Amino acid sequence: MFSGLLSDLVQNLKKLPGIGSKSAQRLAMHIINIEKEKALELADSIRETVESYTNCSICNMLSETDPCRFCSDRSRHQNLLCIVENTQDVYLIENTNEFKGRYFVLNDLLSPIDGIGPDEINYPRLLELVKSDSIDEVVLALNPSAEGESTISFLASQFEKLKVKVTRLSTGLPFGGDIEYTSSLTLGNAFKRRYSVKEK
Amino acid sequence: MFSGLLSDLVQNLKKLPGIGSKSAQRLAMHIINIEKEKALELADSIRETVESYTNCSICNMLSETDPCRFCSDRSRHQNLLCIVENTQDVYLIENTNEFKGRYFVLNDLLSPIDGIGPDEINYPRLLELVKSDSIDEVVLALNPSAEGESTISFLASQFEKLKVKVTRLSTGLPFGGDIEYTSSLTLGNAFKRRYSVKEK
Repeated sequence: MFSGLLSDLVQNLKKLPGIGSKSAQRLAMHIINIEKEKALELADSIRETVESYTNCSICNMLSETDPCRFCSDRSRHQNLLCIVENTQDVYLIENTNEFKGRYFVLNDLLSPIDGIGPDEINYPRLLELVKSDSIDEVVLALNPSAEGESTISFLASQFEKLKVKVTRLSTGLPFGGDIEYTSSLTLGNAFKRRYSVKEK
Repeated sequence: MFSGLLSDLVQNLKKLPGIGSKSAQRLAMHIINIEKEKALELADSIRETVESYTNCSICNMLSETDPCRFCSDRSRHQNLLCIVENTQDVYLIENTNEFKGRYFVLNDLLSPIDGIGPDEINYPRLLELVKSDSIDEVVLALNPSAEGESTISFLASQFEKLKVKVTRLSTGLPFGGDIEYTSSLTLGNAFKRRYSVKEK
């Protein structure tokens, strides 16, 4: 349908998550339709951001600065470490205002079948950090998926050997969720982990 | 939630059609997460496309060349002119393989309330083209919306004065549509315009 540069742009846009052929075509048409300055601003914004972002040498998250603003913020609890899969999770957790410790980004989850072992999730560096920075509690803020659960089991067994407290995020019904549309695994777990209504 | 360049990128992505806050955040995180070369390729692709596209001086469509490939293709029916709202419509019509004439892109539809009159839809240039290129038939391929209908009425009345045949796209039930979910306006029109099942 499209040709030349426009077709290349459609192909490049299609590589973005959640963007199919139709959306990519609509976005490309929009980009050549709007004022040139607006579109070039978008191109420059992508280039500048990509060129400025790097992995924090301490926690591994993508950041404009190294160390990142969380690792360099001494007012955060230094002995409390939250382990997440990726940088976006850091932002999502920050949004809740419930955690004031430090972070460590694995960038992946264990999946032996895909050849992803401890080295691929930056475990050696994480272990070093937990030991040298005398971490008291490690919060495993990972998805309750197959890979998430294997990673939780592996990390928990390792850190428990070091006498570090290891916790994970609570599992159960999501707020606003509906029991009718909840999987029986989630519902069973919600029963097992039920708590007194007096608890906050 | 985000800061600095990343926040600017999110704002720039949010300006794209169909991209809300959540999608913009997910896209921005994806862009800084993928290989740098891939992301820079996207930035360059936007820049190059935007810088290369211009309006065809004959038909007004956005094109890498001037005149565009439709206006310079002498094998197309030179006396048959299809009038569309925007460049994307040209590609959508080409995809149907049902039209082999020329195009003219209005880039807008009449809307006196928004100050969009004949000059804003390039009517003077269109009139000149219809007269000088001895067009026999003008196909008004415009949306059957309020603005589309006013534009159809206006252009039809003008071209009929010149003894040019003026047609519009058929209206009725969309293929795959369901009568139950069709507006009564569309359904009434489909009754009024019903045709013999023997017609192709």
